[in-house]
Formats: sequence, structure tokens, C-alpha cells
Amino acid sequence: MSLTEEEQTALVTSDDPHHPANLICELCRNFYTLGWVTGTGGGISIRKEEHIYIAPSGVQKERLEPHNMFILSYPSLDYLRRPINLKPSACTPLFLAAYDKGAGACIHTHSQWAVLVTLINKGKKSFKIANTEMIKGIPCPSTGKYYGYHDTLEIPIIENTAHEEDLRDSLAQAIKDYPDTSAVLVRRHGVYVWGDTVWKAKTQAECYDYLFQLAVEMTKLGLDPAGPIDPVEE
Amino acid sequence: MSLTEEEQTALVTSDDPHHPANLICELCRNFYTLGWVTGTGGGISIRKEEHIYIAPSGVQKERLEPHNMFILSYPSLDYLRRPINLKPSACTPLFLAAYDKGAGACIHTHSQWAVLVTLINKGKKSFKIANTEMIKGIPCPSTGKYYGYHDTLEIPIIENTAHEEDLRDSLAQAIKDYPDTSAVLVRRHGVYVWGDTVWKAKTQAECYDYLFQLAVEMTKLGLDPAGPIDPVEE
Amino acid sequence: MSLTEEEQTALVTSDDPHHPANLICELCRNFYTLGWVTGTGGGISIRKEEHIYIAPSGVQKERLEPHNMFILSYPSLDYLRRPINLKPSACTPLFLAAYDKGAGACIHTHSQWAVLVTLINKGKKSFKIANTEMIKGIPCPSTGKYYGYHDTLEIPIIENTAHEEDLRDSLAQAIKDYPDTSAVLVRRHGVYVWGDTVWKAKTQAECYDYLFQLAVEMTKLGLDPAGPIDPVEE
Amino acid sequence: MSLTEEEQTALVTSDDPHHPANLICELCRNFYTLGWVTGTGGGISIRKEEHIYIAPSGVQKERLEPHNMFILSYPSLDYLRRPINLKPSACTPLFLAAYDKGAGACIHTHSQWAVLVTLINKGKKSFKIANTEMIKGIPCPSTGKYYGYHDTLEIPIIENTAHEEDLRDSLAQAIKDYPDTSAVLVRRHGVYVWGDTVWKAKTQAECYDYLFQLAVEMTKLGLDPAGPIDPVEE
Repeated sequence: MSLTEEEQTALVTSDDPHHPANLICELCRNFYTLGWVTGTGGGISIRKEEHIYIAPSGVQKERLEPHNMFILSYPSLDYLRRPINLKPSACTPLFLAAYDKGAGACIHTHSQWAVLVTLINKGKKSFKIANTEMIKGIPCPSTGKYYGYHDTLEIPIIENTAHEEDLRDSLAQAIKDYPDTSAVLVRRHGVYVWGDTVWKAKTQAECYDYLFQLAVEMTKLGLDPAGPIDPVEE
Repeated sequence: MSLTEEEQTALVTSDDPHHPANLICELCRNFYTLGWVTGTGGGISIRKEEHIYIAPSGVQKERLEPHNMFILSYPSLDYLRRPINLKPSACTPLFLAAYDKGAGACIHTHSQWAVLVTLINKGKKSFKIANTEMIKGIPCPSTGKYYGYHDTLEIPIIENTAHEEDLRDSLAQAIKDYPDTSAVLVRRHGVYVWGDTVWKAKTQAECYDYLFQLAVEMTKLGLDPAGPIDPVEE
Repeated sequence: MSLTEEEQTALVTSDDPHHPANLICELCRNFYTLGWVTGTGGGISIRKEEHIYIAPSGVQKERLEPHNMFILSYPSLDYLRRPINLKPSACTPLFLAAYDKGAGACIHTHSQWAVLVTLINKGKKSFKIANTEMIKGIPCPSTGKYYGYHDTLEIPIIENTAHEEDLRDSLAQAIKDYPDTSAVLVRRHGVYVWGDTVWKAKTQAECYDYLFQLAVEMTKLGLDPAGPIDPVEE
Repeated sequence: MSLTEEEQTALVTSDDPHHPANLICELCRNFYTLGWVTGTGGGISIRKEEHIYIAPSGVQKERLEPHNMFILSYPSLDYLRRPINLKPSACTPLFLAAYDKGAGACIHTHSQWAVLVTLINKGKKSFKIANTEMIKGIPCPSTGKYYGYHDTLEIPIIENTAHEEDLRDSLAQAIKDYPDTSAVLVRRHGVYVWGDTVWKAKTQAECYDYLFQLAVEMTKLGLDPAGPIDPVEE
């Protein structure tokens, strides 16, 4: 049963800055300054109980308004709200793959650091980094604990497809094959990051992006991101 | 027949933030933070029906005011408004070359990524990049469709001239020779990007700039921006 | 003797933007844009007479509110205020090591420049840079004077530990071994900077970060940050 | 004859955002985001008729207030205003060297691009760049005309000294030896840029910084900033 227009409007209207419809707009402005969603790229989705809010496709992310949001019911996946003149995000099936694993929010960026990390790891099925403090900002979904400084963080890299929605199977497979990751890199494309809440997803997306950048800069300097800690000279 | 001062003022006075005179000011502030229009460089023009709005020359782009705008009638090319003490943009004939191809807006940036891409492609008549997700943000004017992930995007590079207006012929020639492009790079200078609307021009300018940056960073890392996708190790 | 809730609230409530509870929030927003505290990383503490204000752990630093602050009495180290649902900063014992040396504020960043400087100095116990104007922004704690242009600035690098609080001993040792430093680098982690006042700590943190960045860029260009000034060709 | 406190206050109090005391504060906030005045480094001075306004030394440039300004009478060089608790800028004699050549404003930055340009030109007495569009934003003081695209821009590099005020003689000498420049680089330190008005000085400082950055990035890519334009392949 579809909602009346008034009911739909109520779902995206709130004075609370933490309401998903408001928060998606604010975070996208933040992400734009970080270079994550330039040129309408990237996306974000937040789940609030049985409602999944998703930013639309092909829209300048830093100029979103709350009334631009799509809303899906979960788990029935009916559209409760479909703004006219806007297209639903091609990331929708990918976000759902994360929700099916219990996520509360999912962020997709086109950050150049993410893309470059997939390029310097050419032909490889994952990216690894070790012995870095910022790894401690990343939780391991299968244990519920955060990674430690000495752990090697491994993030799967899946191959990009011509159509974004066709990534769903390989993304779901990567999530299955790598139960210890909360992110999947897409070769020559970007990264998907999810978390229990929108704040955890946002924080982890920042930690991942930091690690990607560090790995690229280390590579430029001839250093191995996954290498051991060198012994200190006496 | 020229307009009265009141009629001219009316053309740059609006409460609508999307009015061309307001939007040019706002976008130039955005472009300044992106490094596209530093030192009064770069420019932007928006067509609204028979009126072409153009930011003036030699003015700090991040400090533009609506009353600084030049307005040309189109296609008669009479000046409807020429602010005293300001010079018309040297880009004017170049913007017109884009309008003659049906554009709704045109953006010229001095982005260092654009300049560097023309330098790493020294002696070459075009820049190519392939197998990158952000290519999908670029439309092909001759087909009206967006490029696909596996397509090779080719952007012509024309040689710079001592005087900006002298670029007109080679820009027009490049547009003719490369009917599939919505941008032309100018060696050691920058890039011209146009689109059906100001939002499309702005979005595409971001996509191009992203691709230029990625190509430069790939080159630093010894990777070929137009190269094939490496096979994945089993 | 613990404070009443009203007394606690009074300690974080002020109209003065320079009040520690307000200033920590403002500076953290500044640090976020500098990339120093991304992903909840980093931290800051300010001492105001017998009260030490400390930003909480695991919180988005650019979104802090004054009421999020922890307050310790000094030197008794009793918690005067512990916001519920928040964790005290793991940096607390490290900040205290600086306060024990007379500091008025301490800043901890995860700046990539700091991390990269520890990586290009692999196996070494310190980072050195010489003959750079910005060295003059750094004071020498043992003499009370600022460094000169021709001085070599040496900043100790301590090895990171699995748990941040375990850095305390080596940090205290480094402060003892290097009486001329107001900063300690932590390998693959970041940097601790302290100063007589919050403004001095902030200013010095900027000078250090500038020098770290310069050293990394010099290394990319094949130049030695601690090298001599080359003679000028006649 | 010294001014009364009221007369002094009047010199830094204005509702006009373009008043020197206000403009210096606004531009310094802009320069801070550009990385030009981090850690209290850099400086700026504006001449308004017989009054020279100068930002103080050792103060966070992005937090300046109009009442922090020093004012010198020109050409008598008496202090009309000396804020207590603040130190006059060590750049003062250097700014005066520019005013003696007819400048209306002078900007000093510690931009890393400026410093790196002096380092990649080690042992050389000047930095050169050619065949770059942004050169056209730079005027030649001896001719009054702007440089052309095909011109080679040459900027003298003077050696840094232990004390900033000791740069005055070599700066004055460089201005004399290079009558075609409106900027002087200081090795391992930064750059001084001056112009007929504050807007010209600011615009030129942006053009110079752009050219310095481009030269550094070209060097990283193995390209010569002063090299010829490569012939285009047929």
C-alpha cells in the first residue's frame, strides 16, 4: 500500500539535524569538500528502523535537499517515496547487500585514493596495509572488535562492471568471502563502506580513505604499505 | 536598440539564487576553492534563452557581484550590458563557439590538473583515458549518450596562442574534428568544458578535472591512464 | 570530593569563545579541515589553572560540543567531570607527561605528514631538518629561546605500541632524552606537540606539520631535509 | 607628533570591508586556507595614502582583528599606532623596500611551493618558467605591461638570513638588479610579492604561487618548467 503525498513528505521533513533526510544532505556537503562525491559521483544511504533513505542518482551531492530522498521499506523493498524527475541510485542493490549483513548505513565514494589503491594493486584481489595506527579505527564485523595496530587489514577489490547494479553479485560474494571487512574496493571506481550506524560508517570511511592515501604516498616514496616495521638502529 | 540603465539592471537583479547573474557568482566562489580560477584566471558563461551572461575579465572570480556581469544577446551578439570599468572576457569568442554547437553554459578553468595533462601528453594532439568509472559522467555530444566504463575518452589538445581570442579558430576546428567531445584542452593553459545546462557543464567540468588529476597521479606512479585492465591473478 | 552536576556543568559553560571547553571544539573543527583528526583520530587538551580539559575518545572531533569535555583536577588527577556514554581519551597519560613538564596545552595529530616523516626515517630514532625559515617558529624548552634558521631541529621518534596509553613511558623517556624538543613523533601513528599556552601549542603544531610536509616533498624531489645549503653559483 | 588614542583607534575602525585594517584580516583568513601563513608565518601590508598598515609579528594570521594593526606614516616612517603587547613585523623593512619602488601593497608568504621552487633551483640565483598561460597574470614593473605567454618569467632568489630584517639589503639589491620583477623569492623561506594596489598584489601572489606549484609538479614528472614547447606530432 503506497503512502499519500502528505505521509511521504512527513518522512523527509524534520527539524532534527540528525534525521536521515537532513543528515544525508549535510554529510554530502562534507564529502564534496573531501573530494568523495565530485561530479555527482558516490552516494550514501541511512537506515532508520524499517525505512531506508537513499540519495538520488545523477544529482550534485553537495546540493541535495531533504525532499530529494528516495525511501525504501525494509525488508519488503517497496518504494515509499520516489521523487519525480529523479532517478533512484544505481547503488541501491549494493547498499541493500550491506543492509542484509546488518548495516545501519552505507557510504560509496569515488575518492581518488580508493581508485589509486586499486591501481597500484593491479591484478590483485585485495589491498593490504599493516602496522598503522589508523587501522585501529576499523572494526572487524566477524568478531565485533576493532583491529589492532599490528594487524594486517585486508580489503577485497572487486572488478568494476559496465553497469553499477551489476556489481551486486560480486559485492555480495566479496562480503561472504571476506567476513572480516566492512569495506569493498571496486577497481578503477571507488569504495563501499558500511557500519552499524551512520556515524560509524562515516568514521570508518574516513579511516579507510586515510589508509588509502597513506598507501599511495608510501608507494610514491618506495615504501610497502603492508611491510614489516623496520628494526630501530642502536 | 540598446537597453536603458534600468532595463540593464533588471537583467542582473533577482532573488532567485539560480538566476545566471547570481549563479555565476556562487559557482566562481566554488571554483576558487577548487583552484580553477585563481589569480583572476578562468571564466564562466551561462545562456538563458536569448541572453548570454559572461563573467568579466581580469577580476577576482571569487569576489564577483551580479552587477559585474556582461550580457550579450544571442545570436545577434549585441552587448545588452557592459559594466563600465570592466573588460569583457577574452574567452567570449570561445564561449560563443560552444553556444554555436547548442551549449547552455561553458566553463573555462586554469586547473593545474588540466595543464599537467597537456604537459605529460607532450607533442600529442589529444589526451586519452580508459576504463575508469568517472568516464560515465561525460556525455558524447554526437550520440547524446553517456560514455561507458570501457570506452576510451579522448579529449583534443589545441596549442595555446599569445592572445586568448586567437584560440577561437583552433577551438572551433577541434570541436568539428572531435564531434564526440564536450571539452577541449589548451596546452599549458587549461580546459574549456560546455554542457546543455549550467549544471551539466559544472558536473562535467568536475568529472573532467577528476580524470585529469587521476591521469597525472597514475603517471607519477608509472601507470598508463589509457592502458588496459590488468588480468586478475588467480 | 566530587562536584555536583551543576558545578560540573558550570565548568563547561561559558560565553567566552576562548574558554577551554569552547576552544577545544573550535580548534578541532580547524584541525579536521587540516586532516589532523580524521576518523575520530587525534586529540587535544588544555590546562586552565588546576583544571585540565580533554576531548573524549572515539568521537568525531569536528562535531564536539563543550559538554563532551572531560575535566581532571591537576595535579591530583581526580576526574571532576566524566560525561556519561563517553570514554576518556587514551591520550590522557600522554598529555599528563607534557603537563608534568610545565605545558599549558597539548595537541595530538594523526597528520599523514607526521606519519610519512617517521616512515622515510625508517629505523632512525629521530627526524632532523635544517636551514628552513619555519624552524624559527619552534621554541627550545631547555633554553626558552626560539630555534634559529641555521639550527638543526631534531624531533625524537618513538615506536608505536598496541595500546596508546602504553606510549607513556617511552614518551616520558623521549622528553627526558631530548630536553630541546616540544614534540615527539610516534612511528606510523602521528605526533604529540605541547606548548606553554594553547595558542603556542597550536602555532607550533602548524610549524611542525609544515616542516614534516616540506621534508616529505623534499624527499620526493630527491633532496635531503637535513642537508646543507648549496653554494650559490657565481 | 604622536596621535591620541582616539585618533589611533579611528585609523583602524571602519564599516568599509575594503578599509586596510579590515581587509588585512579578511585576506589573512584567505591566505591561511591557502597554506601561506600557517604557524604565524608570512605577512601583509597595505598602503593607504600616507598610512602604511602592517599585520603584527608572531600572531596567528587567520585570527587577526583590525585593532591589531600597526600603522606607519609614509615616508616619515613614524609609528602612528603600535598596539601594546604586540611586536611590529620583522618584514617591515622589506615591505618598505617595495613601497620605495611605488608599491601599494606587499604580501609575504611561506607557501611550500615557493620554498620548494627555491630548493629545486639549488645554487641558482633565479627561478625561470616559460610558455605558461598564467604568466600573463604578472606585470613587468619596468614596462608597465603584462608578460606574454611566450615570455620567460624570471624571479630572483636571494639567500635567507638568520634575522628577517637582514634581508633588506639583498632584497633591495634584487629589486634593483631585476627591474622586471614584482616578486623576490627567499631561499628556504618564502616569497615577497608587491603590486600597485592590494588587489593586484593579491592576484599576482596567486599567479606566482600557481606557477611555483606547477613548476614543482612538472619537476616531479621529469619536465622542465623553463623548457621549450614540444613540436606537435603530425
